[in-house]
Formats: sequence, C-alpha cells, structure tokens
Amino acid sequence: MITNKTEINVRYQETDMMGVVYHANYLVWFEIGRTSLIEDLGFYYHEIEKQGVVSPVVDASIQFKRPVRYGDEVFVKTWVKAYDGLRITYGYHVEHHNGELAVSGETKHVIVKKDTFRPVSIRKHFPDWHDAYLRAMEKSE
Amino acid sequence: MITNKTEINVRYQETDMMGVVYHANYLVWFEIGRTSLIEDLGFYYHEIEKQGVVSPVVDASIQFKRPVRYGDEVFVKTWVKAYDGLRITYGYHVEHHNGELAVSGETKHVIVKKDTFRPVSIRKHFPDWHDAYLRAMEKSE
Amino acid sequence: MITNKTEINVRYQETDMMGVVYHANYLVWFEIGRTSLIEDLGFYYHEIEKQGVVSPVVDASIQFKRPVRYGDEVFVKTWVKAYDGLRITYGYHVEHHNGELAVSGETKHVIVKKDTFRPVSIRKHFPDWHDAYLRAMEKSE
Amino acid sequence: MITNKTEINVRYQETDMMGVVYHANYLVWFEIGRTSLIEDLGFYYHEIEKQGVVSPVVDASIQFKRPVRYGDEVFVKTWVKAYDGLRITYGYHVEHHNGELAVSGETKHVIVKKDTFRPVSIRKHFPDWHDAYLRAMEKSE
Repeated sequence: MITNKTEINVRYQETDMMGVVYHANYLVWFEIGRTSLIEDLGFYYHEIEKQGVVSPVVDASIQFKRPVRYGDEVFVKTWVKAYDGLRITYGYHVEHHNGELAVSGETKHVIVKKDTFRPVSIRKHFPDWHDAYLRAMEKSE
Repeated sequence: MITNKTEINVRYQETDMMGVVYHANYLVWFEIGRTSLIEDLGFYYHEIEKQGVVSPVVDASIQFKRPVRYGDEVFVKTWVKAYDGLRITYGYHVEHHNGELAVSGETKHVIVKKDTFRPVSIRKHFPDWHDAYLRAMEKSE
Repeated sequence: MITNKTEINVRYQETDMMGVVYHANYLVWFEIGRTSLIEDLGFYYHEIEKQGVVSPVVDASIQFKRPVRYGDEVFVKTWVKAYDGLRITYGYHVEHHNGELAVSGETKHVIVKKDTFRPVSIRKHFPDWHDAYLRAMEKSE
Repeated sequence: MITNKTEINVRYQETDMMGVVYHANYLVWFEIGRTSLIEDLGFYYHEIEKQGVVSPVVDASIQFKRPVRYGDEVFVKTWVKAYDGLRITYGYHVEHHNGELAVSGETKHVIVKKDTFRPVSIRKHFPDWHDAYLRAMEKSE
C-alpha cells in the first residue's frame, strides 16, 4: 500500500485563541496530503481540472486526539482506503514527530463535470487513474 | 427540541476555484450555528472561556449533498443531538431557502481546562449548562 | 457621501493564539463591507461576475490601531474614497460600538475580463456603475 | 542585507472563484516568510512568545501585480526594510519561478506584552534581537 508522508509547518494563522490549531484546518492539511499522494501516483490535481472535471468531497470524518500547537513538528500520512471505480476514500493520520497520533480522518470524493456537477465514472473515463488507485491499495508482501 | 436557525451570508473568501464554498468552511458555519444555539440557551461562549475552560471538538462528520455558491441564500440549523453529562453532540443542517439540504453534519465536544486540556464533567462543575443541554433535547409535545 | 455600516460577528475561527482577530481577516471584513456598499448602490457583486468580469484588488493598506477580540461587538464602515472611471478606491473603518477605531484601511480595485485579466473601462462599458460610483462620492449638503 | 527565500506550495483552499489566490492570503504568506527570516537570524517566533510578548502588525500594505494560480511555483522573499529599536518593518516579494513579481508588500510590527498589549522597547529588553535586526539590514560589500 502506498502511503504519502508530508511535513506540515504550522502557520500562526492556523491557530485560534484556544492556543491550538483550529479544527477546520485539519481538512486543509488532509488536502495537502491528498495532493501529494496523487503526485506520488503520477498525477497533478491542477492538470486533472484542465480536463473539465473537479473532485469534490462528499463525506468527511475527523477524530481529534491531541491538539497541535504552533512550533510543533508534525506530518500528515495519506493513503487510499477504499475505491470502487466511482468513489475514492482517502485515510489520514496527522502525527507528531515522536509518533503520537494527533488527528485521524477520512474523506470520500467523486469526480464530477465542472459545469454541471454530474458524476463521472473514473473506471470508464479515466482508466489511468483507475489503475493508479488500484495499485495504490495493493498490499505489499 | 430547541433548534437554532442562523442566516449565513456566503463570503467571496469562502469560495474556491471550483466556484463553490470550500468544504472546510462548513465547519466554521457549524461553529456559527453552535454559538448562536448556545446563546438561545442563555450562555455566551466567550463568557464560558473566562472560567478557564475551553470546548474543543473531539469528533466531526460532514456529508456534502449539494454545493453552495456565492450569492446563494442559506442558513444553518443547529440542535443538541446527544449529551451524557460529559460529551455533547450537536447536529447541523445547512439548507437553501427553498428547503433543499446542502450539507449535514455533527460535532462532538468536551469541556477541558484551558491550561492542561484535561476533561471536566459538565454535570458536576457546570450544573446550569447541564440543565440547559437537557432542556434543549426535550421533545416538544 | 454614501457610507455603509455593517455589523460583524467575530468568529472563533478568526482569532489566533495571540487571543485577538488575526490581521489578514480584516481584509475579509473589508470585503463584507464593500459587498454591502455595492448593494446599497443597487448592484450585486455575484451578478456582476455573470457578465464575464471580475474585480481584483490591486492595492491594499491597513492600519491596526486596537485589537478586536472574540465577543466584541464591531462594525465596518465602507465608502468610495476615489474613482477615476477605471480604478475605484474604497475606504474602511472597523469600529467598536463605543466608537473607538480598531482598524482603518483602503483597497483599490479594477475591473478585468475573467478569462484574460485585461482591464476594462468602467466608464465606457458599465455606465450604470460609473454613475453609481460618482453618486456615492457626492458630498451631502 | 539578509534576504530569506521560502518556497510556497499554493493550497487549493487559498484560491477563490476568480480562479486565483484570494488576496488576503498573501498576508499569510508574508507571515511564512517572516517566520523563516527570523529563524535565519537565530530565533524561533514560538520561543519568543514564551517570554510573555507578542509581535502584532501595526501597518501593512500590499501591491498585487499578477495573479498566482493553483499549480504555480512561487516563493516569497523577505528582508528587514527598516528598524528603529521599537518598530520593525519587513519587506516582501512573492515571485514566480521565472522571476516575475506577483505581489510586493510590507508589514510593520511592534513588540507588546501579551496581557496588556503595551509596547516594549526591543533595544532595551531584547538586545539579542536588536543586534540581529541591525545585522540583517547591513549592506553587503
């Protein structure tokens, strides 16, 4: 299974008056991990959109285990958790450098036409991504 | 059951290049609804923090049904979905003015001490909120 | 001179670990005031973009006088400060309810074609806005 | 003169429906450059705050020359533009990889006590930073 690991530099702007990273920002970090995983698979999300499709989130869940603070060194791990030819689910772990889990979560995406937001089959219309997603989930031996 | 309904004016800043509201911003709108519901219950969140506690999210889930665009008129409905004396779960619906559901979700919160992030029993230490949360969940006849 | 006055509800998300509103967010509040002033003049910004143009900021300046905190009651005042048929400059004041000035600033905008970002003369191509901008600057007697 | 150069990965979240980076986000990028320059000078901003002071922006100005889009490769250059023992002004350039200037700007900061927001003399109370700021402005021969 291919897992991407991306360093996150906590931005002052991402903190709130609680003194920790504001919870909605983890969805932005998930996006950073997802973009980087997609590059590992050989694609660029900004190139994908040039084909007239976008990939909105249809479902998201997040578990907040430990706060992350400004100055902390953290990274986000991202992998493909499920894929059925139409919908793809990414899994995420935000971890401190000592291995402690800060936040876990997942987001489910579809591909839709940019102008109509109608769903498009990845298997049928984007066979290269289809193969890459399957490959990304393969168990290593 | 007490349900708060708060108007949302979509900000240009909240859109992304997909032409719709960026998904993480719904968590911010949930926060707006939650704050307003808490006021309906007779409290101000900014007063609560003066007592040395904060109320972080421990769990969140969001279902994205229909995109919201700049210029759309939407509101967020918020209610208390579950409460056990320690953890409180809020439910949310973001709806268009024609009644169409755009986004649904829930967030679970605890109360912790601001300096240590150690959990505090609401039932025990904040009996007024405890009563308010119970009242908020009461079925109307 | 037409001045718009719009209430701002400070969002928890807008604060940072300094315990005050993060400075970049005032540009977002300026946008809220500007949008509302444009409505006072009889236009909707989301309708304007349907004509294939957008109105990017070309210059901005902000003076931070006093911090704004979560729970504070503030409003933003917006007016047309300068206009030459091509470029429009808005002025802004963020004020506390007691009249104390928190933040002042201005932003200068042009109108450009959405696809090429080439400037468009407001005077020539949008005579209705042109008249409205002139009217907005008129001294009351 | 010490100039810091930091790579920026444009986040999808930072774009708006105009298809470009939303203008307020450049202030966040300035913060990233500033933090990195401060590290080049031998300090960590998150350590500085542990001494009971914070460094709010008192003035900012930004000139938007060319839009930045998702997928663009850009960096921010940051340097100390002026310093008088009390107030420090940083200069910034956001540049495309081909050398084209996208955005320029400056921010002026003071050091204040975290609890009272009263100004503190850097020269007097933080002689190490004082020296570092002077050193950062020295002309190279």
